[in-house]
Amino acid sequence: MIYADNAATTKLDKDAYEAMLPFLLNEYANASQPYSFSRKTKAALKKARQMIADCINALPEEIYFTSGGTESDNWAIKGLAFADKEKRAMITSAFEHHAVLNSCAAIEYLGYPVAYMWPTKAGLIKADILEKYITNTTRLVSVMFANNEIGTVQPIKELSTMAHSYGALFHTDAVQAVGHIPIDVQDLGVDMLSASAHKFNGPKGVGFLYIRNGTSICSYLNGGSQEFTMRAGTENVAGIVGMAVALQKNCENIKNNIAHLYNLERIIVERLNKCGIDYIRNGIENGLPGLLSLSFKGCSGEQLLHRLDLQGIEISTGSACNSVKTEISHVLTAIGLEDNYAKGTIRISFGKDNKCSDAEKIINELIHVIHAL
Amino acid sequence: MIYADNAATTKLDKDAYEAMLPFLLNEYANASQPYSFSRKTKAALKKARQMIADCINALPEEIYFTSGGTESDNWAIKGLAFADKEKRAMITSAFEHHAVLNSCAAIEYLGYPVAYMWPTKAGLIKADILEKYITNTTRLVSVMFANNEIGTVQPIKELSTMAHSYGALFHTDAVQAVGHIPIDVQDLGVDMLSASAHKFNGPKGVGFLYIRNGTSICSYLNGGSQEFTMRAGTENVAGIVGMAVALQKNCENIKNNIAHLYNLERIIVERLNKCGIDYIRNGIENGLPGLLSLSFKGCSGEQLLHRLDLQGIEISTGSACNSVKTEISHVLTAIGLEDNYAKGTIRISFGKDNKCSDAEKIINELIHVIHAL
Repeated sequence: MIYADNAATTKLDKDAYEAMLPFLLNEYANASQPYSFSRKTKAALKKARQMIADCINALPEEIYFTSGGTESDNWAIKGLAFADKEKRAMITSAFEHHAVLNSCAAIEYLGYPVAYMWPTKAGLIKADILEKYITNTTRLVSVMFANNEIGTVQPIKELSTMAHSYGALFHTDAVQAVGHIPIDVQDLGVDMLSASAHKFNGPKGVGFLYIRNGTSICSYLNGGSQEFTMRAGTENVAGIVGMAVALQKNCENIKNNIAHLYNLERIIVERLNKCGIDYIRNGIENGLPGLLSLSFKGCSGEQLLHRLDLQGIEISTGSACNSVKTEISHVLTAIGLEDNYAKGTIRISFGKDNKCSDAEKIINELIHVIHAL
Repeated sequence: MIYADNAATTKLDKDAYEAMLPFLLNEYANASQPYSFSRKTKAALKKARQMIADCINALPEEIYFTSGGTESDNWAIKGLAFADKEKRAMITSAFEHHAVLNSCAAIEYLGYPVAYMWPTKAGLIKADILEKYITNTTRLVSVMFANNEIGTVQPIKELSTMAHSYGALFHTDAVQAVGHIPIDVQDLGVDMLSASAHKFNGPKGVGFLYIRNGTSICSYLNGGSQEFTMRAGTENVAGIVGMAVALQKNCENIKNNIAHLYNLERIIVERLNKCGIDYIRNGIENGLPGLLSLSFKGCSGEQLLHRLDLQGIEISTGSACNSVKTEISHVLTAIGLEDNYAKGTIRISFGKDNKCSDAEKIINELIHVIHAL
C-alpha cells in the first residue's frame, strides 16, 4: 500500500510508540495522586509539556493537553465566548475546519454574533480582508494556520497583529501545520493555537491547546484540578508522552522533511503538466508541504479515489471529516472553484515516510486512470 | 508494591493492551475515510460499540465514544442545558464528582438554575430526598451511580422512575460503577450514563456516554460527523478497542470479582474491629465492591498515606482529583462526618488483581502505623 493521505491522519512514529508503552503497562499511576508510584507519571507529563512548549517557543504552563484538535478548537472558541458575558462578536473564515465552523455555529445559537470571511480564489485570508470585518468590539479572530483541504498557509502574523490592533484576541487552528511548518508563537503573536497529535505522527485521541499566559478564558471540560485547573480529566499519560516525542522528532527534522515533501509534490505536478490533462491545482505553491489538491475537469473525485484504492494507493477526495457526504466541500465552494472541476477533486498528502517512488507510482496510476475514464 | 487505589485508576488489562497494539501500529487509518485501508478501523469501532452496548444492555447506536468520564459528564449536563432555551432547572447531589459539580456550576454561571441535594449520613440519595426538590419544570436529575470516595451505591432505578414521573430526564455518572457492578440501562431506566475506561482496566483518555435514543441533547464537541454526528473528532481507535475488551472481560467475571472484592474488604474490617482502634467506616456495607473509606479518630489521612507509601502500599486519602488540596473533601462534608474523624480518612480501593495477602499486608501495616503515631 502507498499511503498518501497524511492530512487525514499519520502513522504513529516508532519512537513515539516505544515511549508510550511503559505508560500503558506498568506506569499506570494516576498523576494526581501524592504517593511515590505517581512520580514517574507526573515527571513524564512535566517533560512532555516542556518538550511541546519548546517546539513552538511557548512556556510549559501555556500548553494544555486535550483529547485532540476538535476539543482544542471547541475550547478556544467557546471557552472564550463563555468568559464574555457581553457576548461580543467573533470573526472566522468560511473555509475553516468544521471543528471551528461548528463551534462558531454553536455559540451563534447561544446568541454570540459570528462573521465569516471569504478567502481569495487562491485560498488566502489576507489582512486587508480581515480589516473589512474587524471592529473595536470584536472579541476573537480565528483563522486556520494551513487549510486541510487545499494546503494554503495563511499570513498568521499579519492577521494576529491586526486583531490585536483592534483589541481582539487571535486563535489559529494549526492542526495541519504543527510539526510540518516551523511555528513560533512569540513571533506570530497568536493568543491560542490548536494542535492534534495524530496529524504529526503522534497517537489519536490527544492534542493540545496553547493559551498565552493572561488570556481570559473559561475551562471547557470542568471537573478535577488537572492542567492548572483549566482542563479536567485524568491525564492520558501514554498519549501525551507519544505526542511529545512525535512532535519533537518532526520538529528536529522539519527542514529536511519540508524539502523532501516539496520534491514529492514536484514529481506529481511536473508529470501532470506534461501529459495534457485538464486540471487545476488548488491553493498556491509552497503551501503545506506535501499537500496537493488537484481538480480534474469532468471527473469524479470519488471515482478517482476508488480506482486508485484498487491499485493500493490511498488518497482523499476532500477533508476526512466530510467523506460521508458527496457534495462539493465548503472549502472548494469558498474559493469559488467551478463545479465541473470541483467534483473531480482529489487530495494527495504525502508524509515524511513517503518515497520518490511513491510519488511516481501515484502519478503513473492517476494518469492511467484518468485516460481510461 | 501493593496497589490498592483502584478507584483512582486501574492497571490496563493485558488482553485490552494486546488488542490495542495493532491500532497503534499498522492499522492507523482514519476511520472516516472511504478507502479499503480504513475498513479494519471502521469494523473495530463497530465491534467495540456493540461489545460495550451488550455490557450495559443498550443499543450500539446509544453508545458515544468520548475522551473519558469528565467529558461524558460535561456533555450530559451542558449538552442537555444548551438544548433547552427555556433554561429549566437541574437537580444533582452535593457529593457528586467534580466533573458533575463543576459542570453544574458552569451552567449556573450561564443562567440555568441548579439545586443540590444532600445525602443521608450513610451517603445515600433516596427517592424521598429527590421528591422534595423535583417539580414539573425540572429538566434533568443527575445522581452518581456509586460515590468515588465512600462507595455508596445509589438507588438509581427509584431515582430515575421519580425523575420520569415529573417529566425530567435522568443522568448518572457511573464512572466508578461500570465494569464493577452489573448495569442494565433498560431495567434502570436511565436516559444517560457516563463511563471512563481507565476505571475498569481500560486505557486512560477514553470513555463513553450512553444516551437513550430520542433524548434531546446538543453535541458538546462540534466538528466532523463522527459518532452519528454527535461527537466530533477523529476516533481514538486503539483506546476504544482497549476499552471494549477491558469492559467485556470485567463484565464476564463480574460475579466472581465482586465476591473476591467483598472478601478483601472483610479481611480489613474484621481485623480493624478486633484491634480496638477508634474508626468509622463511611458509607454502607455492600457498596462498591472493594472500596473502603475509613476515618481514624485524631489521625491525619495524609500522614497515613505517606507512612503506607513508605511500606510500598498505595492508597488514597480522598478522591484522586482533589489530592492537591488538604481540606476535608466535599463528600465527607456532605455526609456530615465529624472533623476529628474526617481529617483521618483514607480510601482503600481493591482491584480484581489484588490478593488476600495484599489485604492482610495492608491491615497489618495500617494497624502498625496507627499504633506508632
